[in-house]
Amino acid sequence: MKIRNYTRVERRDAFLKENAKGVSIRVAISEEDGAQTLTMSIFELDPDGYTPLHEHSHEHAVFVLRGSGKMIDGKKEHILSKDDVVFVPANQKHQIKNTGDSVLTLINVVPICK
Amino acid sequence: MKIRNYTRVERRDAFLKENAKGVSIRVAISEEDGAQTLTMSIFELDPDGYTPLHEHSHEHAVFVLRGSGKMIDGKKEHILSKDDVVFVPANQKHQIKNTGDSVLTLINVVPICK
Repeated sequence: MKIRNYTRVERRDAFLKENAKGVSIRVAISEEDGAQTLTMSIFELDPDGYTPLHEHSHEHAVFVLRGSGKMIDGKKEHILSKDDVVFVPANQKHQIKNTGDSVLTLINVVPICK
Repeated sequence: MKIRNYTRVERRDAFLKENAKGVSIRVAISEEDGAQTLTMSIFELDPDGYTPLHEHSHEHAVFVLRGSGKMIDGKKEHILSKDDVVFVPANQKHQIKNTGDSVLTLINVVPICK
């Protein structure tokens, strides 16, 4: 069992700068902790930050810890608020933008099924 | 893509009453949402609530949203505080107790690898 406060996990840039802005990641659970079937990361988006519009073959679960923003699926925009849960299916285009005045903090969980 | 505030998800008893007390669950992401490789649930433990001491073959990731408590692995006790991330390996005994005066709220993610 491994317990640590996410605020003490190293924070680093999450995406290449060409297609994202002001997004950092803290990888809180990964293979390094012995996890074989999931990762849990905390993303922080600056007030004007956004992720790339991207897609991947794994599903993921997102939880909005604090802040406000929107999730874009390539067509529609969905408002994100504190305590929202988001399910992103496999191969679904998605982009997250911070629309508020404070940091948008998200928990992101990805299952790793081999 | 599916987005909803966890507070609007139906809340029900999480465990049998014989070996747990005051624990409810809101299943926020499951097969019903099209998820094939994970579930995300929110657990709420009343101030004197506790889960059973139990184990299972899947790993899980826990995030402490609010409140305080302890995680027991069958031998040692570990303090749980807001913003803590917990990795519970497969087949690791674990029990959670609320040690505070308010509700202990936890996000629980379980990967489902078939």
